[in-house]
Amino acid sequence: MRSLTLFRLDHRTVRDQRITSHVALTARALGCQHFIYSGERDPNMEQSIRDVVSRWGGSMEVEHTTSIRGIISGFDGIVVHLTMYGEDHRNTIATLEEYPDEPILLVVGGPKVPRYVYSLADLNTAIGWQPHSEVAATGIFMRELLGTDPLYHNYPDAKISINGTGSKAQRSERFKSN
Amino acid sequence: MRSLTLFRLDHRTVRDQRITSHVALTARALGCQHFIYSGERDPNMEQSIRDVVSRWGGSMEVEHTTSIRGIISGFDGIVVHLTMYGEDHRNTIATLEEYPDEPILLVVGGPKVPRYVYSLADLNTAIGWQPHSEVAATGIFMRELLGTDPLYHNYPDAKISINGTGSKAQRSERFKSN
Repeated sequence: MRSLTLFRLDHRTVRDQRITSHVALTARALGCQHFIYSGERDPNMEQSIRDVVSRWGGSMEVEHTTSIRGIISGFDGIVVHLTMYGEDHRNTIATLEEYPDEPILLVVGGPKVPRYVYSLADLNTAIGWQPHSEVAATGIFMRELLGTDPLYHNYPDAKISINGTGSKAQRSERFKSN
Repeated sequence: MRSLTLFRLDHRTVRDQRITSHVALTARALGCQHFIYSGERDPNMEQSIRDVVSRWGGSMEVEHTTSIRGIISGFDGIVVHLTMYGEDHRNTIATLEEYPDEPILLVVGGPKVPRYVYSLADLNTAIGWQPHSEVAATGIFMRELLGTDPLYHNYPDAKISINGTGSKAQRSERFKSN
Protein backbone atom coordinates (compact mmCIF):
# COMPACT_ATOMS: atom_id res chain seq x y z
CA MET A 1 0.00 0.00 0.00
CA ARG A 2 1.07 3.56 -0.61
CA SER A 3 3.02 5.11 2.26
CA LEU A 4 1.45 8.21 3.84
CA THR A 5 3.01 10.38 6.54
CA LEU A 6 0.79 12.89 8.31
CA PHE A 7 2.30 16.19 9.40
CA ARG A 8 0.14 18.30 11.75
CA LEU A 9 1.31 21.92 12.08
CA ASP A 10 1.40 24.16 15.16
CA HIS A 11 -0.15 22.04 17.88
CA ARG A 12 -1.22 23.95 21.02
CA THR A 13 -1.29 21.75 24.13
CA VAL A 14 -4.42 23.10 25.78
CA ARG A 15 -6.56 24.18 22.89
CA ASP A 16 -5.74 21.45 20.36
CA GLN A 17 -5.19 18.31 22.40
CA ARG A 18 -8.34 16.52 21.28
CA ILE A 19 -8.32 17.88 17.73
CA THR A 20 -4.71 16.80 17.16
CA SER A 21 -5.24 13.35 18.65
CA HIS A 22 -8.39 12.96 16.53
CA VAL A 23 -6.35 13.86 13.43
CA ALA A 24 -3.68 11.30 14.37
CA LEU A 25 -6.14 8.50 15.15
CA THR A 26 -8.13 9.19 11.99
CA ALA A 27 -4.93 8.97 9.97
CA ARG A 28 -4.03 5.70 11.73
CA ALA A 29 -7.47 4.19 11.06
CA LEU A 30 -7.05 4.94 7.37
CA GLY A 31 -3.59 3.44 7.07
CA CYS A 32 -1.03 6.07 8.12
CA GLN A 33 2.03 4.70 9.96
CA HIS A 34 3.96 7.88 10.67
CA PHE A 35 2.65 10.97 12.49
CA ILE A 36 4.74 14.13 12.87
CA TYR A 37 3.66 17.36 14.57
CA SER A 38 5.13 20.80 15.15
CA GLY A 39 4.19 23.46 17.72
CA GLU A 40 4.12 22.74 21.45
CA ARG A 41 5.57 19.41 22.49
CA ASP A 42 2.76 17.46 24.20
CA PRO A 43 3.78 14.22 25.95
CA ASN A 44 0.19 13.50 27.08
CA MET A 45 -1.15 13.70 23.55
CA GLU A 46 1.72 11.52 22.30
CA GLN A 47 1.03 8.97 25.01
CA SER A 48 -2.68 8.83 24.22
CA ILE A 49 -1.84 7.93 20.62
CA ARG A 50 0.76 5.34 21.64
CA ASP A 51 -1.77 3.80 24.05
CA VAL A 52 -4.24 3.29 21.21
CA VAL A 53 -1.57 1.74 19.00
CA SER A 54 -0.42 -0.58 21.78
CA ARG A 55 -3.96 -1.82 22.48
CA TRP A 56 -5.47 -1.83 19.00
CA GLY A 57 -2.40 -3.05 17.11
CA GLY A 58 -0.22 -2.14 14.19
CA SER A 59 2.42 0.54 14.39
CA MET A 60 2.46 4.31 14.11
CA GLU A 61 5.58 6.33 14.76
CA VAL A 62 4.91 9.59 16.63
CA GLU A 63 7.45 12.36 16.15
CA HIS A 64 7.75 16.00 17.22
CA THR A 65 9.67 18.53 15.13
CA THR A 66 10.71 22.15 15.50
CA SER A 67 11.27 22.65 11.79
CA ILE A 68 8.27 22.73 9.50
CA ARG A 69 10.50 23.73 6.61
CA GLY A 70 12.95 20.91 7.33
CA ILE A 71 10.27 18.20 7.29
CA ILE A 72 8.61 19.45 4.11
CA SER A 73 11.81 20.19 2.18
CA GLY A 74 13.44 16.95 3.26
CA PHE A 75 10.54 14.70 2.24
CA ASP A 76 11.23 12.27 -0.59
CA GLY A 77 7.83 12.01 -2.28
CA ILE A 78 4.82 14.23 -2.97
CA VAL A 79 3.84 16.92 -0.45
CA VAL A 80 0.09 17.58 -0.29
CA HIS A 81 -1.18 20.45 1.85
CA LEU A 82 -4.81 20.30 3.01
CA THR A 83 -6.30 23.80 3.04
CA MET A 84 -9.69 25.28 2.30
CA TYR A 85 -7.90 27.60 -0.15
CA GLY A 86 -6.65 24.68 -2.23
CA GLU A 87 -7.85 23.18 -5.49
CA ASP A 88 -10.79 20.78 -5.76
CA HIS A 89 -9.51 17.57 -4.12
CA ARG A 90 -10.94 15.47 -6.95
CA ASN A 91 -8.34 16.98 -9.28
CA THR A 92 -5.62 16.30 -6.72
CA ILE A 93 -6.64 12.66 -6.34
CA ALA A 94 -6.68 12.20 -10.13
CA THR A 95 -3.14 13.56 -10.33
CA LEU A 96 -1.88 11.43 -7.44
CA GLU A 97 -3.31 8.31 -9.06
CA GLU A 98 -0.82 8.83 -11.88
CA TYR A 99 1.98 8.32 -9.31
CA PRO A 100 0.74 5.28 -7.35
CA ASP A 101 4.10 4.36 -5.84
CA GLU A 102 5.19 7.73 -4.50
CA PRO A 103 5.04 8.30 -0.75
CA ILE A 104 2.78 11.17 0.35
CA LEU A 105 3.41 13.76 3.05
CA LEU A 106 -0.03 15.08 4.03
CA VAL A 107 0.35 18.48 5.73
CA VAL A 108 -2.57 19.54 7.94
CA GLY A 109 -2.62 23.15 9.03
CA GLY A 110 -3.09 24.71 12.43
CA PRO A 111 -4.48 28.17 13.21
CA LYS A 112 -2.05 30.17 11.07
CA VAL A 113 -0.26 28.46 8.23
CA PRO A 114 2.95 30.24 7.13
CA ARG A 115 2.85 31.38 3.52
CA TYR A 116 5.91 29.25 2.64
CA VAL A 117 3.95 26.05 3.33
CA TYR A 118 1.74 26.83 0.33
CA SER A 119 4.83 27.39 -1.82
CA LEU A 120 6.76 24.34 -0.64
CA ALA A 121 3.80 21.97 -1.09
CA ASP A 122 3.53 20.18 -4.43
CA LEU A 123 -0.27 20.35 -4.28
CA ASN A 124 -2.54 22.55 -2.18
CA THR A 125 -5.88 20.82 -1.94
CA ALA A 126 -9.27 21.50 -0.37
CA ILE A 127 -11.91 19.15 0.95
CA GLY A 128 -14.58 21.60 -0.12
CA TRP A 129 -14.38 25.38 -0.10
CA GLN A 130 -16.22 25.74 3.19
CA PRO A 131 -14.88 26.02 6.73
CA HIS A 132 -15.21 22.72 8.60
CA SER A 133 -12.55 20.60 10.26
CA GLU A 134 -9.00 19.39 9.80
CA VAL A 135 -10.15 16.07 11.26
CA ALA A 136 -12.85 15.55 8.65
CA ALA A 137 -10.59 16.85 5.89
CA THR A 138 -7.90 14.33 6.84
CA GLY A 139 -10.42 11.50 6.94
CA ILE A 140 -12.08 12.30 3.63
CA PHE A 141 -8.82 12.94 1.79
CA MET A 142 -7.31 9.65 2.97
CA ARG A 143 -10.50 7.77 2.15
CA GLU A 144 -10.41 9.21 -1.38
CA LEU A 145 -6.74 8.35 -1.84
CA LEU A 146 -6.48 4.97 -0.13
CA GLY A 147 -10.04 3.63 -0.19
CA THR A 148 -12.03 2.11 2.66
CA ASP A 149 -10.25 -1.24 3.10
CA PRO A 150 -7.71 0.09 5.65
CA LEU A 151 -10.65 0.95 7.96
CA TYR A 152 -11.38 -2.76 8.31
CA HIS A 153 -7.81 -3.99 8.50
CA ASN A 154 -7.27 -6.85 10.90
CA TYR A 155 -4.22 -6.26 13.13
CA PRO A 156 -2.78 -9.62 14.19
CA ASP A 157 -1.07 -8.04 17.22
CA ALA A 158 -4.20 -6.25 18.54
CA LYS A 159 -5.15 -6.76 22.20
CA ILE A 160 -8.62 -5.37 21.48
CA SER A 161 -10.65 -5.79 18.31
CA ILE A 162 -14.24 -5.48 17.07
CA ASN A 163 -15.71 -7.48 14.26
CA GLY A 164 -18.96 -5.56 13.86
CA THR A 165 -21.28 -8.54 14.15
CA GLY A 166 -22.00 -8.24 17.88
CA SER A 167 -25.28 -7.23 19.49
CA LYS A 168 -24.46 -3.54 19.12
CA ALA A 169 -24.31 -3.89 15.34
CA GLN A 170 -28.00 -4.84 15.30
CA ARG A 171 -30.51 -3.70 12.67
CA SER A 172 -34.15 -2.84 13.34
CA GLU A 173 -36.86 -5.26 12.18
CA ARG A 174 -37.42 -3.26 9.02
CA PHE A 175 -33.85 -3.79 7.81
CA LYS A 176 -33.11 -7.25 9.17
CA SER A 177 -33.65 -8.97 5.83
CA ASN A 178 -31.56 -6.57 3.76
CA MET B 1 -31.03 15.90 -2.56
CA ARG B 2 -31.66 13.52 0.31
CA SER B 3 -32.44 15.26 3.61
CA LEU B 4 -30.03 14.52 6.46
CA THR B 5 -30.39 15.70 10.06
CA LEU B 6 -27.40 15.36 12.34
CA PHE B 7 -27.99 14.58 16.03
CA ARG B 8 -24.97 14.94 18.32
CA LEU B 9 -25.42 13.32 21.74
CA ASP B 10 -24.28 14.56 25.17
CA HIS B 11 -22.36 17.72 24.41
CA ARG B 12 -20.16 19.00 27.24
CA THR B 13 -19.53 22.74 27.06
CA VAL B 14 -15.89 22.83 28.11
CA ARG B 15 -14.52 19.55 26.87
CA ASP B 16 -16.44 19.20 23.60
CA GLN B 17 -16.85 22.72 22.28
CA ARG B 18 -14.47 22.35 19.36
CA ILE B 19 -15.31 18.72 18.62
CA THR B 20 -19.05 19.42 18.49
CA SER B 21 -18.66 22.51 16.32
CA HIS B 22 -16.34 20.55 14.01
CA VAL B 23 -19.02 17.84 13.73
CA ALA B 24 -21.67 20.46 12.91
CA LEU B 25 -19.55 22.31 10.35
CA THR B 26 -18.47 19.06 8.71
CA ALA B 27 -22.12 18.05 8.39
CA ARG B 28 -22.97 21.48 6.92
CA ALA B 29 -20.13 21.28 4.38
CA LEU B 30 -21.47 17.92 3.20
CA GLY B 31 -25.07 19.07 2.82
CA CYS B 32 -26.78 18.83 6.24
CA GLN B 33 -29.34 21.55 6.97
CA HIS B 34 -30.48 20.60 10.45
CA PHE B 35 -28.26 20.11 13.50
CA ILE B 36 -29.64 18.93 16.85
CA TYR B 37 -27.63 18.30 20.01
CA SER B 38 -28.32 17.03 23.53
CA GLY B 39 -26.28 17.44 26.71
CA GLU B 40 -25.27 20.84 28.03
CA ARG B 41 -26.83 23.80 26.28
CA ASP B 42 -24.00 25.87 24.79
CA PRO B 43 -24.95 29.29 23.39
CA ASN B 44 -21.34 30.06 22.34
CA MET B 45 -21.07 26.89 20.30
CA GLU B 46 -24.48 27.56 18.72
CA GLN B 47 -23.42 31.11 17.86
CA SER B 48 -20.16 29.97 16.29
CA ILE B 49 -22.13 27.71 13.93
CA ARG B 50 -24.68 30.42 13.13
CA ASP B 51 -21.83 32.85 12.39
CA VAL B 52 -20.40 30.47 9.81
CA VAL B 53 -23.80 29.99 8.18
CA SER B 54 -24.43 33.72 8.06
CA ARG B 55 -21.07 34.45 6.41
CA TRP B 56 -20.67 31.41 4.18
CA GLY B 57 -24.30 31.06 3.10
CA GLY B 58 -27.08 28.53 2.96
CA SER B 59 -29.08 27.56 5.99
CA MET B 60 -28.64 25.19 8.90
CA GLU B 61 -31.08 25.04 11.76
CA VAL B 62 -29.40 24.58 15.17
CA GLU B 63 -31.53 23.02 17.89
CA HIS B 64 -30.94 21.83 21.47
CA THR B 65 -32.98 19.00 22.99
CA THR B 66 -33.30 17.40 26.41
CA SER B 67 -34.84 14.20 25.05
CA ILE B 68 -32.63 11.84 23.07
CA ARG B 69 -35.41 9.28 23.02
CA GLY B 70 -37.97 11.83 21.83
CA ILE B 71 -35.85 12.94 18.86
CA ILE B 72 -35.00 9.41 17.73
CA SER B 73 -38.46 7.92 18.25
CA GLY B 74 -40.19 10.90 16.66
CA PHE B 75 -38.09 10.91 13.51
CA ASP B 76 -39.92 10.12 10.27
CA GLY B 77 -37.24 8.37 8.22
CA ILE B 78 -34.25 6.10 8.78
CA VAL B 79 -32.19 6.45 11.98
CA VAL B 80 -28.49 5.63 11.51
CA HIS B 81 -26.23 5.52 14.57
CA LEU B 82 -22.49 5.99 14.00
CA THR B 83 -20.54 3.79 16.41
CA MET B 84 -17.32 1.84 16.24
CA TYR B 85 -19.35 -1.19 17.35
CA GLY B 86 -21.60 -1.02 14.29
CA GLU B 87 -21.65 -2.99 11.06
CA ASP B 88 -19.29 -2.27 8.13
CA HIS B 89 -20.52 1.07 6.75
CA ARG B 90 -20.31 -0.23 3.19
CA ASN B 91 -23.21 -2.58 3.95
CA THR B 92 -25.15 0.29 5.51
CA ILE B 93 -24.63 2.53 2.47
CA ALA B 94 -25.75 -0.27 0.15
CA THR B 95 -28.96 -0.68 2.16
CA LEU B 96 -29.64 3.07 2.29
CA GLU B 97 -29.23 3.33 -1.48
CA GLU B 98 -32.32 1.13 -1.79
CA TYR B 99 -34.29 3.92 -0.08
CA PRO B 100 -33.03 7.03 -1.87
CA ASP B 101 -35.90 9.32 -0.87
CA GLU B 102 -36.04 8.65 2.84
CA PRO B 103 -34.71 11.31 5.20
CA ILE B 104 -31.84 10.22 7.44
CA LEU B 105 -31.25 11.02 11.09
CA LEU B 106 -27.53 10.53 11.69
CA VAL B 107 -26.87 10.01 15.41
CA VAL B 108 -23.31 10.74 16.56
CA GLY B 109 -22.39 9.56 20.03
CA GLY B 110 -20.74 11.34 22.92
CA PRO B 111 -18.66 9.78 25.72
CA LYS B 112 -21.28 7.28 26.92
CA VAL B 113 -24.05 6.24 24.59
CA PRO B 114 -27.13 4.82 26.36
CA ARG B 115 -27.90 1.25 25.39
CA TYR B 116 -31.37 2.21 24.11
CA VAL B 117 -29.81 4.29 21.33
CA TYR B 118 -28.46 1.08 19.77
CA SER B 119 -31.93 -0.49 20.00
CA LEU B 120 -33.87 2.50 18.69
CA ALA B 121 -31.57 3.04 15.70
CA ASP B 122 -32.53 1.32 12.45
CA LEU B 123 -28.88 0.77 11.58
CA ASN B 124 -25.78 0.86 13.78
CA THR B 125 -22.83 1.54 11.55
CA ALA B 126 -19.07 1.90 11.94
CA ILE B 127 -16.56 3.88 9.94
CA GLY B 128 -13.96 1.22 10.60
CA TRP B 129 -13.57 -0.88 13.74
CA GLN B 130 -10.83 1.28 15.18
CA PRO B 131 -11.04 4.19 17.62
CA HIS B 132 -10.67 7.53 15.82
CA SER B 133 -13.04 10.48 15.74
CA GLU B 134 -16.72 11.34 15.54
CA VAL B 135 -15.72 14.25 13.29
CA ALA B 136 -13.99 12.02 10.74
CA ALA B 137 -16.74 9.39 11.03
CA THR B 138 -19.39 12.02 10.25
CA GLY B 139 -17.41 13.33 7.29
CA ILE B 140 -16.66 9.94 5.76
CA PHE B 141 -20.19 8.60 6.27
CA MET B 142 -21.77 11.65 4.65
CA ARG B 143 -19.28 11.57 1.79
CA GLU B 144 -20.16 7.92 1.17
CA LEU B 145 -23.90 8.59 1.29
CA LEU B 146 -24.17 11.95 -0.48
CA GLY B 147 -21.02 12.12 -2.60
CA THR B 148 -18.56 14.99 -2.95
CA ASP B 149 -20.63 17.52 -4.92
CA PRO B 150 -22.09 19.21 -1.80
CA LEU B 151 -18.52 20.12 -0.74
CA TYR B 152 -18.28 22.41 -3.77
CA HIS B 153 -21.80 23.81 -3.65
CA ASN B 154 -22.05 27.48 -4.55
CA TYR B 155 -24.22 29.39 -2.04
CA PRO B 156 -25.78 32.39 -3.82
CA ASP B 157 -26.27 34.21 -0.48
CA ALA B 158 -22.68 33.77 0.74
CA LYS B 159 -20.81 36.86 1.94
CA ILE B 160 -17.51 34.95 1.69
CA SER B 161 -16.57 32.32 -0.85
CA ILE B 162 -13.49 30.60 -2.28
CA ASN B 163 -13.20 29.22 -5.75
CA GLY B 164 -9.92 27.34 -5.33
CA THR B 165 -8.13 28.89 -8.27
CA GLY B 166 -6.30 31.63 -6.34
CA SER B 167 -2.59 31.86 -5.64
CA LYS B 168 -2.93 29.58 -2.61
CA ALA B 169 -4.22 26.74 -4.81
CA GLN B 170 -0.88 26.70 -6.63
CA ARG B 171 0.91 23.53 -7.80
CA SER B 172 4.66 23.03 -7.80
CA GLU B 173 6.53 23.05 -11.14
CA ARG B 174 6.45 19.27 -11.31
CA PHE B 175 2.65 19.15 -11.33
CA LYS B 176 1.80 22.33 -13.21
CA SER B 177 1.08 20.56 -16.48
CA ASN B 178 -1.13 17.81 -15.01
